[in-house]
Amino acid sequence: MIRAGVVGASGLAGGDLIRLLTQHPEFELTFLGGSSHVGRRPAELHPNLRQDLGLAVEAVTEDVADRVDVLFLATPAPVSADLAALLADRVPALVDLSGAFRIRTPELHERWYPKVQRRPDLAERFVYGVPELVRDRLPDAALISLPGCYATALTLGLAPLTLGLGLDLTTVVVDGKSGSSGGGLQLRATDLHALRNGAIAPYAPTGHRHAAEVGDFLTREAAGKAGSVGSLSMSAYGVSHVRGLLTSTYAFPAEPVDQRALHRAYLRFYKGQPFVRVRRHTETLIPVPDPQAVLGSNYCDVSVLHDPDADRIVVLAALDNLVKGAAGQAVQAANLRFGLPEETGLTMQPVMPA
Amino acid sequence: MIRAGVVGASGLAGGDLIRLLTQHPEFELTFLGGSSHVGRRPAELHPNLRQDLGLAVEAVTEDVADRVDVLFLATPAPVSADLAALLADRVPALVDLSGAFRIRTPELHERWYPKVQRRPDLAERFVYGVPELVRDRLPDAALISLPGCYATALTLGLAPLTLGLGLDLTTVVVDGKSGSSGGGLQLRATDLHALRNGAIAPYAPTGHRHAAEVGDFLTREAAGKAGSVGSLSMSAYGVSHVRGLLTSTYAFPAEPVDQRALHRAYLRFYKGQPFVRVRRHTETLIPVPDPQAVLGSNYCDVSVLHDPDADRIVVLAALDNLVKGAAGQAVQAANLRFGLPEETGLTMQPVMPA
Amino acid sequence: MIRAGVVGASGLAGGDLIRLLTQHPEFELTFLGGSSHVGRRPAELHPNLRQDLGLAVEAVTEDVADRVDVLFLATPAPVSADLAALLADRVPALVDLSGAFRIRTPELHERWYPKVQRRPDLAERFVYGVPELVRDRLPDAALISLPGCYATALTLGLAPLTLGLGLDLTTVVVDGKSGSSGGGLQLRATDLHALRNGAIAPYAPTGHRHAAEVGDFLTREAAGKAGSVGSLSMSAYGVSHVRGLLTSTYAFPAEPVDQRALHRAYLRFYKGQPFVRVRRHTETLIPVPDPQAVLGSNYCDVSVLHDPDADRIVVLAALDNLVKGAAGQAVQAANLRFGLPEETGLTMQPVMPA
Amino acid sequence: MIRAGVVGASGLAGGDLIRLLTQHPEFELTFLGGSSHVGRRPAELHPNLRQDLGLAVEAVTEDVADRVDVLFLATPAPVSADLAALLADRVPALVDLSGAFRIRTPELHERWYPKVQRRPDLAERFVYGVPELVRDRLPDAALISLPGCYATALTLGLAPLTLGLGLDLTTVVVDGKSGSSGGGLQLRATDLHALRNGAIAPYAPTGHRHAAEVGDFLTREAAGKAGSVGSLSMSAYGVSHVRGLLTSTYAFPAEPVDQRALHRAYLRFYKGQPFVRVRRHTETLIPVPDPQAVLGSNYCDVSVLHDPDADRIVVLAALDNLVKGAAGQAVQAANLRFGLPEETGLTMQPVMPA
Repeated sequence: MIRAGVVGASGLAGGDLIRLLTQHPEFELTFLGGSSHVGRRPAELHPNLRQDLGLAVEAVTEDVADRVDVLFLATPAPVSADLAALLADRVPALVDLSGAFRIRTPELHERWYPKVQRRPDLAERFVYGVPELVRDRLPDAALISLPGCYATALTLGLAPLTLGLGLDLTTVVVDGKSGSSGGGLQLRATDLHALRNGAIAPYAPTGHRHAAEVGDFLTREAAGKAGSVGSLSMSAYGVSHVRGLLTSTYAFPAEPVDQRALHRAYLRFYKGQPFVRVRRHTETLIPVPDPQAVLGSNYCDVSVLHDPDADRIVVLAALDNLVKGAAGQAVQAANLRFGLPEETGLTMQPVMPA
Repeated sequence: MIRAGVVGASGLAGGDLIRLLTQHPEFELTFLGGSSHVGRRPAELHPNLRQDLGLAVEAVTEDVADRVDVLFLATPAPVSADLAALLADRVPALVDLSGAFRIRTPELHERWYPKVQRRPDLAERFVYGVPELVRDRLPDAALISLPGCYATALTLGLAPLTLGLGLDLTTVVVDGKSGSSGGGLQLRATDLHALRNGAIAPYAPTGHRHAAEVGDFLTREAAGKAGSVGSLSMSAYGVSHVRGLLTSTYAFPAEPVDQRALHRAYLRFYKGQPFVRVRRHTETLIPVPDPQAVLGSNYCDVSVLHDPDADRIVVLAALDNLVKGAAGQAVQAANLRFGLPEETGLTMQPVMPA
Repeated sequence: MIRAGVVGASGLAGGDLIRLLTQHPEFELTFLGGSSHVGRRPAELHPNLRQDLGLAVEAVTEDVADRVDVLFLATPAPVSADLAALLADRVPALVDLSGAFRIRTPELHERWYPKVQRRPDLAERFVYGVPELVRDRLPDAALISLPGCYATALTLGLAPLTLGLGLDLTTVVVDGKSGSSGGGLQLRATDLHALRNGAIAPYAPTGHRHAAEVGDFLTREAAGKAGSVGSLSMSAYGVSHVRGLLTSTYAFPAEPVDQRALHRAYLRFYKGQPFVRVRRHTETLIPVPDPQAVLGSNYCDVSVLHDPDADRIVVLAALDNLVKGAAGQAVQAANLRFGLPEETGLTMQPVMPA
Repeated sequence: MIRAGVVGASGLAGGDLIRLLTQHPEFELTFLGGSSHVGRRPAELHPNLRQDLGLAVEAVTEDVADRVDVLFLATPAPVSADLAALLADRVPALVDLSGAFRIRTPELHERWYPKVQRRPDLAERFVYGVPELVRDRLPDAALISLPGCYATALTLGLAPLTLGLGLDLTTVVVDGKSGSSGGGLQLRATDLHALRNGAIAPYAPTGHRHAAEVGDFLTREAAGKAGSVGSLSMSAYGVSHVRGLLTSTYAFPAEPVDQRALHRAYLRFYKGQPFVRVRRHTETLIPVPDPQAVLGSNYCDVSVLHDPDADRIVVLAALDNLVKGAAGQAVQAANLRFGLPEETGLTMQPVMPA
């Protein structure tokens, strides 16, 4: 068994990591870290979890290195930055779910993470990206930085256009819609049920750092070849559910495209990928992609539509922000890191309706 | 007292019309029409309504003309088309809430309302538009066609840019987010609570007829002068609440603009308008515009934001789709039609939280 | 105009008081008090409210007595206790929405409000009770203590049985179901949308102080005559909506009763009361009482059902906890205090669906 | 592999059966039956399901007997009754999730299932009950009738009192609270999102057939010994979430009890049972039992509380109505039927928050 630890055990992503790791046949949970709730058992914090795990939350020290083969950091970016500095050379594998090491371009990092001091040496050692696109860089990767939840959906939605078809996109407008679990368990009045339920809260109407992260990555990957993105702008809204997000990407291509070719290109791009489901908008009785159809699972559902009236491409991508957008993707990356089949421990099907 | 009738009394917009008319000091409800639920009292259909109204649903005949001064049609477009043909010359004032007479351009009408036969003679007699923009055409208007719920928000959001500032917009992308009451009470599996709750349902991802309606109107109003809209495309989503919608409009101007000038232009454009509240995104502890802040009222909250990274304009407009998007706007238009102050009977403040 | 002040202006009940008072034809809002958010305008705190009120939150001092004829205290019980001590003899009318002065029996007060020191002299001067039951004590009452939200529903549901029919009830079991607005805006993890949405939270499974309050009141009113309540126990649950509550009262009568007589007794008991709607469970297409049918209004919907299998009486009572359970009832009581018709400013009909 | 078929594949319980069976290591899905949606693939009906199952919905005939070892009937009671008559002697194992064969006492069956003709011969061959209580009757059982969703929670909550402690209960009041998935996918206006969201719908205020079923079973099991239930009455409410239910059972014991002994008795009664979690109400930061803590899993969370003020016992039981209340319990029973470990294929942990 591969020994796994989770830091940030009392948060929502931490809770889902515990959930997934206790269902995993090859990982064994041996450490739970956190700065709050020290001494608490997981089931006290997350009443869904099994009561017999035999672990409690501990403060993190260097010694954790003796107790884990892989350490998942489900911590705020500044905490992740500090823990990575402490443990990067001590723990065989470190998987960071925060934004601390996502953006490579220095100016962009400073713009979007002004409170997280950049550590250039460390930053360059991290492998960044959704496993579907950087799979061959993950085996034996010591440091892994996972994309944000929106960034995962956005990248999986755009990559077949730019990296796959090599389409140049002049203008890309992203409208992100997320449930309340995206905000974690911080105590803010706007996240109270009484104020959030029924809301459409435009919490980031003129920009979101996950878009910056995606632009940074796609530009790097395109490497000057075809598949450029001109203007990429995003707005983000909190809507009235808990788990799951949808990114609506409205992309204007430099040259005409057609529906059939687009759909085929997506099928081809994701052929054999276990966690990306390319869907036809019309294939089900219920419109998809919709986050409710992936709830609790590691799937990302993607569809591509051509709007002939405006000659624009509409890409919809839905995922569970706590699974494919966080804990599940972390386990997926760790599976690849340790040479396990990618789906190990992640075969649970979505729970719907919920 | 002005005698008022409501056809479509068993539907959601019909119910809200009854609610508003029973609170109205100058209108008296004298007729309820419908093809289903004939004989039912309003409180049986809508358990919120007062139990003592003394009216029941009746089939509509020509004779209704003797019993009302104004007739509100909260009926599906084909029904409205037929009733208008029957009653247009018999009833002093007819206010249609459906799409039957909204689009003036024949090809557009046929594209978006293929099942509603166009009646050119009748269509041209209807005054169309949100009262804020066509106020001086409403007194003594015999036939009034009200914009769709999305169209109201979209028009109120865009008009200060195009009709006010005369800005030419090259590309306009609209992302509409609506609660489930927008779908009425038709029995469709996708509108069951079990399937709709928690969903982000992309039900019209590549186009919505309300956008066609707005393009038709704004083009006509601009009349070839400045304030053109190049490409206008819309996608619409059902999200997990009941009442209220938000339109997010992402507009790319032909020339640079700045935040302060935009906000001032909106304040100026809507100065003295009782039902449009121009809001600063940062003025409240809770992000606005948000439909929850206008629930149950006739307000439309609007804000304009400049995104310097992409040189785009973000316009947010929120309204209660059953009030400012339907019944309230109908009463507002009827107030103007009969020379009453615009706010008469519409002074209720939004109910929040709900 | 009667000058009115609201203390606790930043809370949910405070917000609804401002909403109702700005719609009221006879009250004029002249003071907003609070200990937090001093200097903020109401529309910053409650984005639904009108932006032009010309008032901001101020700290409360004795001087408020010069500026108001009636002061509403929408404050926590300890704060209300202190403010009442300060202002009881200075302000013409004080209406307290908290629990500070609800329970008359000393031992019960100490049991359920251990942190609110009892002030016997002051306590006895307060008129307690729902206006429907203590109407003739309200004109000229200087000090009014309003029942809790659950207590209002529970009392209105039980009174026709005990005070009306004089039924002796051996066992009464109350199951209360409330939305999240009942918890106010305190920052507790359990009230975050992510944890509260979809929950059925048994937050008070073995007793609730509102039941104690009702027992105290009904016992006092019955005054040893028929209409006794043997065991009265309550459990309370938070369910997944925002505004409104339902009390389900399961009462076992000492002697047999029948459905028709019960319903008639309720109709008789509430005849002419504008805010209590006695409903037949079967009269609408939608089961009632249901809080959604009274949302935003001052109605309490009540129904009584006889369950022949168990010879028990089921009483259902639904109200909007922020209106009939708080702000609306406060205005109703103040109307009576100042000799106005009870419905003044409270004629808004429920907003449904929402 | 054991070949499994599901009839009623387009419904909610059918969908969850497919979900669980495709995750199950020992069952292989070989047949999908239904009368509607014939020819549809599962992923068209349930967009969460895997797209590659290679099965489509078929009409059910006798020939299904050649293709399955076990057939799950997730069909309405009248359909189940007919299919059982057709297939009882042909299929090795038949697991019925409907109410057709739940009630043994003829008068009770006729009272609560008037439209389902009773088949005494067949009825007596069915093993009824939650697996936790009838485990030793399941191996080799040819016909299994599963309890209703409420009945499962109610029985698991009451059994330790009556069958375990042998307590006589004079009065038992049950208040059941369920999400909208309990109503299936039938098209009823009251189940539309617009009308159901935010509701507390008293849909069965004076009785529910699941309580009759439980009374029938517990009386039979007590077999005249201690552990009697005097009056057992139930009321049921639809609240504003989708998946999961809570039964609140208020039981008045004939003799005094105390908290500690009650809790211990529950721990003892369910010792070693993998799917019943006895919880202390105070053990978590979030009140439990709450259906959100068991969502998507086969757990039933139970707690017992003594209310000293009224000398009553409060039992709370929460489960996922589609899993432990339907599909999961069906798989659990089938596991036992075929000699597999009870947990096989059911080890998924609850998804929370959702």
